[in-house]
Amino acid sequence: MRDDWTIVEHQFRAETALAYEGLFTLGSGYLHLRGSLEEHLPDAPQNLEYVRRPANVTSECFPHAKARWGTYVPGVFGPHPWLNAEMINLPWPAGITPIVDGEILDVETGLIEEYRRELRLDTATLLRRLRWRTKTGVLVALRFERFISAARPHMLVQRMKLSADRKAQLTLSAGIDADVRTNGYDHFREMRFAPLGRSGLSAAVRTDSGIRVELATRMYAPGLKWEYAPAPRAAALLASTTLPAGMEVAVEKRTAVATSRDLTPRAATDWLSETDRQTFAELHAEHARCWEQRWERCDVVVEGDQQAQRALRASLYHLLRAHVPDDARVAIDGKGYAGEAYWGRYFWDTEMFLLPFFLYTDPPRARTLVDFRVNTLPGAQRNASRYGYGGARYAWESDADGNECCPNWQYADHEVHVTADVAYGLAHYARATGDDDYLRGPAARVVVETARYWMQRLDRRPGAEHPCLLGVMGPDEFKPISNNNAYTNRLVRFALRLAAEVGPAGGATAEECAAFRQAADGLPIPRDATGGLVLQCEGFDQLPDLDFERFWKDRDRTLASQVSQERLYRSRCLKQADVLMLMLLFPDEFSAAELRRAWDYYVPITTHDSSLSPGVHAIIACRLGLTDAAQRFWDRAAAIDLDVARGGAAQGIHISNAALLWQMAVLGFAGMKTAMQSQVLSFQPRLPESWSRLSFPVCWKGGRVRVEIGRAQMSVTNVGDRPLEVCVGAATHTLPPGLTQTWPLTAPARQEQTS
Amino acid sequence: MRDDWTIVEHQFRAETALAYEGLFTLGSGYLHLRGSLEEHLPDAPQNLEYVRRPANVTSECFPHAKARWGTYVPGVFGPHPWLNAEMINLPWPAGITPIVDGEILDVETGLIEEYRRELRLDTATLLRRLRWRTKTGVLVALRFERFISAARPHMLVQRMKLSADRKAQLTLSAGIDADVRTNGYDHFREMRFAPLGRSGLSAAVRTDSGIRVELATRMYAPGLKWEYAPAPRAAALLASTTLPAGMEVAVEKRTAVATSRDLTPRAATDWLSETDRQTFAELHAEHARCWEQRWERCDVVVEGDQQAQRALRASLYHLLRAHVPDDARVAIDGKGYAGEAYWGRYFWDTEMFLLPFFLYTDPPRARTLVDFRVNTLPGAQRNASRYGYGGARYAWESDADGNECCPNWQYADHEVHVTADVAYGLAHYARATGDDDYLRGPAARVVVETARYWMQRLDRRPGAEHPCLLGVMGPDEFKPISNNNAYTNRLVRFALRLAAEVGPAGGATAEECAAFRQAADGLPIPRDATGGLVLQCEGFDQLPDLDFERFWKDRDRTLASQVSQERLYRSRCLKQADVLMLMLLFPDEFSAAELRRAWDYYVPITTHDSSLSPGVHAIIACRLGLTDAAQRFWDRAAAIDLDVARGGAAQGIHISNAALLWQMAVLGFAGMKTAMQSQVLSFQPRLPESWSRLSFPVCWKGGRVRVEIGRAQMSVTNVGDRPLEVCVGAATHTLPPGLTQTWPLTAPARQEQTS
Repeated sequence: MRDDWTIVEHQFRAETALAYEGLFTLGSGYLHLRGSLEEHLPDAPQNLEYVRRPANVTSECFPHAKARWGTYVPGVFGPHPWLNAEMINLPWPAGITPIVDGEILDVETGLIEEYRRELRLDTATLLRRLRWRTKTGVLVALRFERFISAARPHMLVQRMKLSADRKAQLTLSAGIDADVRTNGYDHFREMRFAPLGRSGLSAAVRTDSGIRVELATRMYAPGLKWEYAPAPRAAALLASTTLPAGMEVAVEKRTAVATSRDLTPRAATDWLSETDRQTFAELHAEHARCWEQRWERCDVVVEGDQQAQRALRASLYHLLRAHVPDDARVAIDGKGYAGEAYWGRYFWDTEMFLLPFFLYTDPPRARTLVDFRVNTLPGAQRNASRYGYGGARYAWESDADGNECCPNWQYADHEVHVTADVAYGLAHYARATGDDDYLRGPAARVVVETARYWMQRLDRRPGAEHPCLLGVMGPDEFKPISNNNAYTNRLVRFALRLAAEVGPAGGATAEECAAFRQAADGLPIPRDATGGLVLQCEGFDQLPDLDFERFWKDRDRTLASQVSQERLYRSRCLKQADVLMLMLLFPDEFSAAELRRAWDYYVPITTHDSSLSPGVHAIIACRLGLTDAAQRFWDRAAAIDLDVARGGAAQGIHISNAALLWQMAVLGFAGMKTAMQSQVLSFQPRLPESWSRLSFPVCWKGGRVRVEIGRAQMSVTNVGDRPLEVCVGAATHTLPPGLTQTWPLTAPARQEQTS
Repeated sequence: MRDDWTIVEHQFRAETALAYEGLFTLGSGYLHLRGSLEEHLPDAPQNLEYVRRPANVTSECFPHAKARWGTYVPGVFGPHPWLNAEMINLPWPAGITPIVDGEILDVETGLIEEYRRELRLDTATLLRRLRWRTKTGVLVALRFERFISAARPHMLVQRMKLSADRKAQLTLSAGIDADVRTNGYDHFREMRFAPLGRSGLSAAVRTDSGIRVELATRMYAPGLKWEYAPAPRAAALLASTTLPAGMEVAVEKRTAVATSRDLTPRAATDWLSETDRQTFAELHAEHARCWEQRWERCDVVVEGDQQAQRALRASLYHLLRAHVPDDARVAIDGKGYAGEAYWGRYFWDTEMFLLPFFLYTDPPRARTLVDFRVNTLPGAQRNASRYGYGGARYAWESDADGNECCPNWQYADHEVHVTADVAYGLAHYARATGDDDYLRGPAARVVVETARYWMQRLDRRPGAEHPCLLGVMGPDEFKPISNNNAYTNRLVRFALRLAAEVGPAGGATAEECAAFRQAADGLPIPRDATGGLVLQCEGFDQLPDLDFERFWKDRDRTLASQVSQERLYRSRCLKQADVLMLMLLFPDEFSAAELRRAWDYYVPITTHDSSLSPGVHAIIACRLGLTDAAQRFWDRAAAIDLDVARGGAAQGIHISNAALLWQMAVLGFAGMKTAMQSQVLSFQPRLPESWSRLSFPVCWKGGRVRVEIGRAQMSVTNVGDRPLEVCVGAATHTLPPGLTQTWPLTAPARQEQTS
């Protein structure tokens, strides 16, 4: 059982160091820290300066071979001269280097006789034990612990315990290192280091965006005397002692981080001093209690498949970690604050992938995500204006101010569906929480302003009666400038109809609202000549086939990294779900035959180069009753961050895939309909063969239930305080609070997958 | 008459300094020097480091506000980390700074009582006279002369004469300055400066591409004693003297440039020493004789419109200057070696715009341009391979090795027509010179290898009988990923048919040749539903109109700089001639009605953002008898480099537009058909109203004629050594050598232009 809550690194290997760093990221929402080793690795400089070219990030190679520190405070962005604003990688606070008899601990080249590192998901704690034989023959036992306090989100707490089997000379170095670049670029303008009392130090940097970031560190180690050692862009505390044989030294390092944009403005030293009287155990206990409460609200229990259980928990862990509570000035970036590959920016992922998990487990957390879009409306208005439009145009890659930051024009200019996705997300929040006032309140101006953008962005072909939407990139990024992308058109329809409804509350005139509705009704969803196939975009079925055998030799790497972009752009192939994504969102608008036709047509030509793809396919497979396919896509998605040998989370957590694991379990295998799809909480379970039990809580329109699904029956318990209608299959019951209703389940006939 | 040969700057103005620098570029083919002032301008640093982002160069803004040195040796490229190889701006050798009574000559802020700078086109000499009142009240008369010897292409020769109206203290500083960046980037790895005898200095730099560049300078000034003054990245010679009232000091500066990639490898000091015994007058005389011979081969005389005459001469001057004789390792870059905006790279301009001028005036010079493509076949093969194709794919932006250097993927990946243009150019060379062996000799492998690329690049739609060409950008760069672009398809047809003909000589099998022909025959030329309109690409007529009034407010700037790219990309508008360019090349394949229909359809939606556009339109207007329109487009084209107030040649000469001025005169107003269009030398003159006479020589298939066109008659004199058939209108005569034939001309009915 404990294994279900633990991710373990059994042996250090340089090849997988980056992947574990990403996977072992700790965070409190406010502060995030990649799981880099306390003692660092040799030959892994963190101050490399290089230029990331605007390119296809999915297929990009990064220059950091072995280790990449990451210290992130969401919202701390800085300007990059040609890549636009990016989240800044802050000074690294977690360094503790043990030196025994003059030898620096180096897990790569040293003689390491035992090694085990584990991330405890239940308490968000990173632990490492190792036994190190020095060149002088001393056997050193080390234990590192680290957590970022959920109770005190500004605090990183670390402890190292060390003992040696014979007398040895021990030196410790622990400090703060600001010689860090973000994507090869230096964002620090001023740096100051100073000693802090006898056993501490402080660091302050000013970013090129004018944000002041302070770090204050204090060492706690009875009997050790610390010496302040400044260095260029860094400072450390040094202590030396003679370690008697068998005696354990325990050293604590506590670091507080504060910035000038904090909602609670306090000095880092104040945050730090607050913990002066707490023991490590006390600090950890209050932290663990917070996490316990978090897990209660969202844990999904899977029995029968321990790997699935662990993957799901790891995903939920990172979702819980990456969300910044009570701060709607930020959302969750594309790498879950566990790497800078996506520049710390916010994508359509926010609404279409991340939001449902929070909506159905912790609505107040979902609220900050939608409020983020409300708050960044001025940025979206600036974007629209920069492109020559009125209204608001949400950024494909947004910084904390809503500015379009994507440096690649094909995405920035053409992947406009994000603006409709934002409206969809606002509506989803309102419907899932039952907070109907939200749409006519805070969200109304966003809905109206984005609709105004669409009205100017719509095209009208010569002589055509209806509008169309030309030159767009849908979710599938292999077709950069396509016409009437089905997904985009349908989402824009949705956004315009929503604006027609709530328009008056957002300042739209009746004439505007009528125009919104008329435009929405006219937008086409392209189909093939038979009418049975929804086309990704006009002419999609006229594209030549790509010879996958010839061009996609190494299936472990993306197709895009093996074939020229211009060939991708004119071939009948997809990077990720596009029409299927549409059908996932609007299931009632497409017949079972249409869904099946789309599946058969698109799946064989979909490369899943994007981590957003397998999860969507798993859910659709569930709907189609393609259990084997669903299982295969689940396995694939579950491995994306956990398969360290293939890179895993090296550049950060694939946070939308993490959220898709929850969606697969709840919307896929449990067959729950979202509040966008059903007024009533409904399930249609279809568990994978090996899963004997699936259990999870759901928040629904202010109510709350616990769902238990077995192989033969399922039950729903109303754990909220109001009666709730629940439908399983075709049977609907109204559950009073406290009551459990049970439904028998019949195994559905298994369908064969044809593709 | 003299005015026809002179471009004059009457007054120095900082706002037009860059434009005159470009316009006054001198060059010997081997070496080119922008017309920057000898004494330089204050606050115009040449070592600014900045990043040029891959963007739309046509609409780009450059950081150099006032002055930009440029010293170019064609072929000296260096790698740029993300913009790819670029021609390196070499150390600036032309500095001579006079300091009188401690005051540095500064034409921007000093008291300049007279100023005149002129470029003498006949002798390729830059002259400047000015009278400068110093703050001490001395009136200083200055005269600068400068030429790069056509007889000694490595030599820059300068002279300054100076006198003062009263006794004054004169200090001179003259040197070589290597503190120069290319597009903001430093390509110099090693720099060495040394004195050279008592009155000289030498500089040597090694580029990041490993090319050694040497400069050797010597000062000639009786009585002056020079002191060597090294500086970081520069060195100068200083001399001081007391200048008696009224006495003229004459100072000469001679500089030789040599590089390690020269065809004639000699030290710069050797080139310099060769001139030791020549006087300035002797050097200038031999230089002027070379230019006289050049002009004889190509001068186009226009009477009745002095502005037209001057513009034409300025254009021919720059074409003669920019061509590197006897060196087929380079061609002519997009800015005519007068600026680095296009990175010194070679475009389709080579074949489609520049080649005709050289073909019909100086075939050996044309030969190096086509041989350049033969020489860079390995580069084109590498490009093809990099994109996943066999055969050869010529670069949209080629360096001297044929490598694709264009950093903007939409152009690099999609503007594939250049590969067909290259084949067209090879055939044009063979047909215009009568050198039939060329195609079956040196060019054959290029023709076959490019055809092999096309065979793999062609697409086949599901179930389609014929191939098509999807995802291309035609000459109009506003439609980046279009299908079956008419221009591209027709040129590819041409290239494939040519390969079917000469294939066996280039190693193609009979089966390959048959396949080439079949593919060529199947490629469609898209038309609208009526069939009467040739469409730029499929669906072009279904694009929405652009509201020009709304989006193109400032007609002095490009449309692209005022509207978002994504709107351009989906609107019915063109940057430059596309279908009309096609019709220019293949006039016999389109009826007069089709040409007229295309004109009426495309001209109103063409923005001429590209300088390649007005010239093509002028020629088409001539063919349509739209004399007024032809005149308007001529005026527009003629102003492109000469209108300094609007930027003119600030970033370099629009060298293809320069070549188009020749094409407009000869192919347009004289109505000559190219050898691709007629076996027989043919004319159909249609002079602008104001032109009373148009006269020019033409080389034709080894023969040579002189053409004289008046308002009432035209005559052709066979000045070659073989009989030549000549056709005017419908009347063909065979002219023996030495004979002149005269044809009466009737004024054609003028047509009204409808658009």
